[in-house]
Amino acid sequence: MTARHGTLFGVGLGPGAADLMTVRADRLIANARHVAYFRKAGRTGHALTIAAPLLAKDAIHFPMEYPVTTEIPLQDPRYNEVLSEFYAQVTMHLRQLLLSGEDVVVLCEGDPFFYGSFMHLYERLKDTVRVEVVPAVTGMSAAWTASGAPITWGDDVLTVLMGTLPSETLIQRMTDADAIVVMKIGRNIGKIRHALREAGKYDRAWLVEYAAQEGQTVQRLAEAEDRVTPYFSIVLVHGQGRRP
Amino acid sequence: MTARHGTLFGVGLGPGAADLMTVRADRLIANARHVAYFRKAGRTGHALTIAAPLLAKDAIHFPMEYPVTTEIPLQDPRYNEVLSEFYAQVTMHLRQLLLSGEDVVVLCEGDPFFYGSFMHLYERLKDTVRVEVVPAVTGMSAAWTASGAPITWGDDVLTVLMGTLPSETLIQRMTDADAIVVMKIGRNIGKIRHALREAGKYDRAWLVEYAAQEGQTVQRLAEAEDRVTPYFSIVLVHGQGRRP
Ligand SMILES: C[S@@+](CC[C@H](N)C(=O)[O-])C[C@H]1O[C@@H](n2cnc3c(N)ncnc32)[C@H](O)[C@@H]1O
Ligand SMILES: C[S@@+](CC[C@H](N)C(=O)[O-])C[C@H]1O[C@@H](n2cnc3c(N)ncnc32)[C@H](O)[C@@H]1O
Repeated sequence: MTARHGTLFGVGLGPGAADLMTVRADRLIANARHVAYFRKAGRTGHALTIAAPLLAKDAIHFPMEYPVTTEIPLQDPRYNEVLSEFYAQVTMHLRQLLLSGEDVVVLCEGDPFFYGSFMHLYERLKDTVRVEVVPAVTGMSAAWTASGAPITWGDDVLTVLMGTLPSETLIQRMTDADAIVVMKIGRNIGKIRHALREAGKYDRAWLVEYAAQEGQTVQRLAEAEDRVTPYFSIVLVHGQGRRP
Repeated sequence: MTARHGTLFGVGLGPGAADLMTVRADRLIANARHVAYFRKAGRTGHALTIAAPLLAKDAIHFPMEYPVTTEIPLQDPRYNEVLSEFYAQVTMHLRQLLLSGEDVVVLCEGDPFFYGSFMHLYERLKDTVRVEVVPAVTGMSAAWTASGAPITWGDDVLTVLMGTLPSETLIQRMTDADAIVVMKIGRNIGKIRHALREAGKYDRAWLVEYAAQEGQTVQRLAEAEDRVTPYFSIVLVHGQGRRP
């Protein structure tokens, strides 16, 4: 007789506000016996902060702490090696739990399958255990809602870009798009400003920090101070398509 | 003394499954005294179907029934005129309710500010009354979750396209994007297939019907029957970006 294996739940938490979690996520988190989440070593971590009020007091925590990588540049092959090793380790622990019959809820910022870290666990586990993914409100939905204007009308083309892309790619894609979302801003802010100027869309760009979180701000990018932005920052250009 | 005006709530319902609604939406709907929603004349309407189990028995309904427009082509200026007139009429009724001090909850499919019909009410009312928008899980998030694979990795570019766009635009944007979402499929399916072939991405495309709804299907587009798809259909091409 084989023991019943557990299910790995990749649960999207949404953009930050506790009540922007889905009803399904809320229930899964409240009933979780095993809960896992990514964070930087020594931090509480954003995912845990959102979910903590819902978690049972005796829930068993598995914090997955990213190895310190700031000294290795993203282009260096060692960067990927260190991360691969880290994912392999945490995956091994999760697999043990799951094969022993325990369900595990992984707390995911935003929507799990949209540029999420959960995807790395998913790819490594999906062929051996049952996985269920719970979609969620994305950070970008919270950002355009905070901006007070719809992001897309009629048949506007929406393009989502990472601030880490090369300048040339940013300029080209920004030129072609009607509506634009840029994520991973941080120290790429100068490059993003430049690309928006080249694409002729700088004056229509907005910067949203901490969308649906404490400290939410919405400013025209042209009027925002020129500094490295916080991790939770998004730049938006709204579409202007057909509207009756 | 001026009477207190009501608030217009644009409440996103998410993709369809009742428990993929946010906790905030769930509460607002359960407490709504006035509820409004778009639908085709003579139908229950999808938005009402999702929200109905939560609504109070004595909630006051304002169904906003689209004028029949199938006989007017989208390009005909009369199409926009008929729709404008319709939005003006329903807006007038909503404004009366709001100015008399009543709150009104508008039920919105998916996320209200992402290609949503609520946007037309919002633009007409935002300068005279208080409006609050509740973001939601989009249809596309439910679609890529249903597909069982992440939509974007690393710095993949995601492009969202409407099937109503001209063939040339579809081909160009599909060629440039790493990950693709196509909405409004219906009778545009032939044009979309052609564009994906031209962009060299046809074999990687998936068709998701009724994501997170009853009757959900996920098929490779190349293996799907060639017919007009239902309203709730999305075509996806997954990104293949950097992954450690
Ligand atoms: C690794 S991606 C994760 C995206 C997430 N899975 C989602 O669905 O939104 C991280 C980026 O998302 C953006 N982001 C996510 N949530 C945000 C929020 N609440 N406010 C502003 N930006 C946010 C930021 O640009 C950040 O750099
Ligand atoms: C007018 S747009 C509204 C989008 C909506 N506001 C959202 O956030 O998803 C309608 C299109 O969304 C897509 N769509 C929305 N929900 C869907 C679902 N649950 N399954 C499949 N497609 C969906 C279909 O392509 C449909 O033609």
